[in-house]
Amino acid sequence: MTNEHASLRVDRARLLDRIFSLAEVGAIEGGGVCRLALTDEDKAGRDLVVAWMRDLSLDVQIDAIGNVIAVREGRDPALAPVMTGSHIDTVRTGGKYDGNYGVLAGLEVLETLAAANITTERSIAVAFFTDEEGARFHPDMMGSLVYAGGMSVEEALDLPGIDGTRLGDELNRIGYAGPSPCPGIVPHAFVELHVEQGPVLEAEGITIGVVERVQGISWQEVIVTGQSNHAGTTPMRLRHDAGYAAALLAVRVREIVGSAGGDQVGTVGSIQLHPDLVNVVAARAVLTMDLRNTDNDALSRVERDVATAMQEIAEAEGVTITSRSTARFEPVEFDPRIINLVEVVAHDQGNTLRRMPSGAGHDAQMIARTCPAAMIFVPSVKGLSHNVAEFTEAADLEAGANVLLHVLFTLANESSP
Amino acid sequence: MTNEHASLRVDRARLLDRIFSLAEVGAIEGGGVCRLALTDEDKAGRDLVVAWMRDLSLDVQIDAIGNVIAVREGRDPALAPVMTGSHIDTVRTGGKYDGNYGVLAGLEVLETLAAANITTERSIAVAFFTDEEGARFHPDMMGSLVYAGGMSVEEALDLPGIDGTRLGDELNRIGYAGPSPCPGIVPHAFVELHVEQGPVLEAEGITIGVVERVQGISWQEVIVTGQSNHAGTTPMRLRHDAGYAAALLAVRVREIVGSAGGDQVGTVGSIQLHPDLVNVVAARAVLTMDLRNTDNDALSRVERDVATAMQEIAEAEGVTITSRSTARFEPVEFDPRIINLVEVVAHDQGNTLRRMPSGAGHDAQMIARTCPAAMIFVPSVKGLSHNVAEFTEAADLEAGANVLLHVLFTLANESSP
Repeated sequence: MTNEHASLRVDRARLLDRIFSLAEVGAIEGGGVCRLALTDEDKAGRDLVVAWMRDLSLDVQIDAIGNVIAVREGRDPALAPVMTGSHIDTVRTGGKYDGNYGVLAGLEVLETLAAANITTERSIAVAFFTDEEGARFHPDMMGSLVYAGGMSVEEALDLPGIDGTRLGDELNRIGYAGPSPCPGIVPHAFVELHVEQGPVLEAEGITIGVVERVQGISWQEVIVTGQSNHAGTTPMRLRHDAGYAAALLAVRVREIVGSAGGDQVGTVGSIQLHPDLVNVVAARAVLTMDLRNTDNDALSRVERDVATAMQEIAEAEGVTITSRSTARFEPVEFDPRIINLVEVVAHDQGNTLRRMPSGAGHDAQMIARTCPAAMIFVPSVKGLSHNVAEFTEAADLEAGANVLLHVLFTLANESSP
Repeated sequence: MTNEHASLRVDRARLLDRIFSLAEVGAIEGGGVCRLALTDEDKAGRDLVVAWMRDLSLDVQIDAIGNVIAVREGRDPALAPVMTGSHIDTVRTGGKYDGNYGVLAGLEVLETLAAANITTERSIAVAFFTDEEGARFHPDMMGSLVYAGGMSVEEALDLPGIDGTRLGDELNRIGYAGPSPCPGIVPHAFVELHVEQGPVLEAEGITIGVVERVQGISWQEVIVTGQSNHAGTTPMRLRHDAGYAAALLAVRVREIVGSAGGDQVGTVGSIQLHPDLVNVVAARAVLTMDLRNTDNDALSRVERDVATAMQEIAEAEGVTITSRSTARFEPVEFDPRIINLVEVVAHDQGNTLRRMPSGAGHDAQMIARTCPAAMIFVPSVKGLSHNVAEFTEAADLEAGANVLLHVLFTLANESSP
């Protein structure tokens, strides 16, 4: 860190003002936000953030999959830029901070540098990536995945939405299919600031989480096909109840996850029955499964155990069960040098800190395929996330943004590697 | 039976023609029908059947809850009429026969009598009752329940639909809030002809089921309230997963029903999660429970066991579970004299027959509160019902209608009791 700027700090009020203003777009009851990817609400949120980017005189680039990258030019445009960013799409019952905080803290860093008339050697870019949540179009982290070359633009544009739409059509509809190429430019380094979305930092009274790795993720969509029949006249032994089979599978997933131990988690978050009536045995059930582990071998074992459970249930109930993978990402290790830099900066600023894994998937894990990357976490009160009550104290939001400021500043003044 | 008319028979082609014509209204893929109560499709079906009633010069009366009663006048209008009937609403994935068969066979009986220039002592009425299925407005058998005085018209009109509508509004909207008083006139006797909706008659190669009693029914709507949270970052031990609790309850219901044995059945036919997303632990689950038994004490024991299971699950998962009864009907015993008459007529016509209980609820059990009643069953192929593939052989449909013809004819010529 250049000593003369060691006392430079972000403007907390300005940061909070942007967070709360963006949270008004798609606001829902209870203080939450609903801006599912590529909906009208997402477009309105994008328009607002892009307007802020232009107010800061940044060079705003939109790529073929709708990722938006705003660049503040450095002294040597030939050097690869340092990048930060996250996402501004949310789940259906999302909070104000998930994703949005990282993007707006990035803008706050650039405004702080501009206000102090500081020019860095390298350009600094702030990005928001399309469809990080994957709540409307699977897989999640889609935009950063395509940015990093892990999925083709063509494949991504053709992804189906849970509402019967097609990603490319919705991207065109909201006017965010841009001219920049994707995969995009490879950054010098990528650092993402995010709320923890878990309870660890708050429980331990720690302000800054230095993220070393991200859990592997396995998503499946499971379809159970049985036979609809009358709920009153069909003896139990003659049933082929898709609803019961789905429920039993959800219970077995919990058991398998419990037996696996470690940091394995598993969730059946969506169950839909057909015809979904009180007096009809369900003919069909569609459910989702979200399995995560930092240990890829352990995650694979859980996937196999779940597959075995599906076979057993199908045989016992006389139904058919099929599943398809809608996302599968191996655990990601972040770059030791960047991890160390985050730790040093956080410590120098007087923060309590700890190294930790990320339980959630993040855009940084995709960009990590192409350049050194790491993440900074700040506490989530009660660990709530994907919840309208998601909350982080203003002092923690400020602390995280200041760590981001000096990490980016340091990286942006590196001439090499 | 008056000997001179012993050889009188219905017209099978005419009966089938009406069944298939009505099945075209609200037809769905696979040969099924969707005419949920008081929808536009139900109105179209009602209009068609009412037109047929008027073609037969019947006196068509519509009551305050939308029950439609068509009367063929007897020699002595002072005597209470004999009544038959059923319903023409269906579940969302219903078949052609459930309910419809009983109503249209009633019309066929009246047309057969008219064609033979036979006048009975008593009037004969053919009714179709509103919302028998209960698939849109709980409870089921609502129209016949109100007809028999078991629920007030006011309460019924105020029932909420699963789609957020109100029963009275929908009844007005389709123009079937009629002027006739409800509760309605008490019949001399009530006989309902229906497809079995179960596998027993077909499996035993028997044509006519003489129904002695109907299972008791208990419906509940259960609401589980947990806490939505991130599926990746929330350790399993900290979860309050409404979706898991709902699934576990569905599995426990199956276990409890199995332990109860006898003819106890139990179904969780509807499960809805909120927010219902792959990567969010569900905050809320709404599920339905359908429990039936011919033994009321046994049914009550199952209800208690399920309530205990709800408490245990709520405590273990840290969620709240509330339930409310949306229907509770005790088992109903039909009238021995009418049961005997059905048996004698079916036997005289050369049918194979057996006495049996009904696993499904039927309008006849409601009307049985006010007058002697019984039911006639014909086979359901593979026991399929509430299923688009519901099917009964034409010969069986004819046989059932001929039993109904002579049972009604006999009852309508009784001067007393």
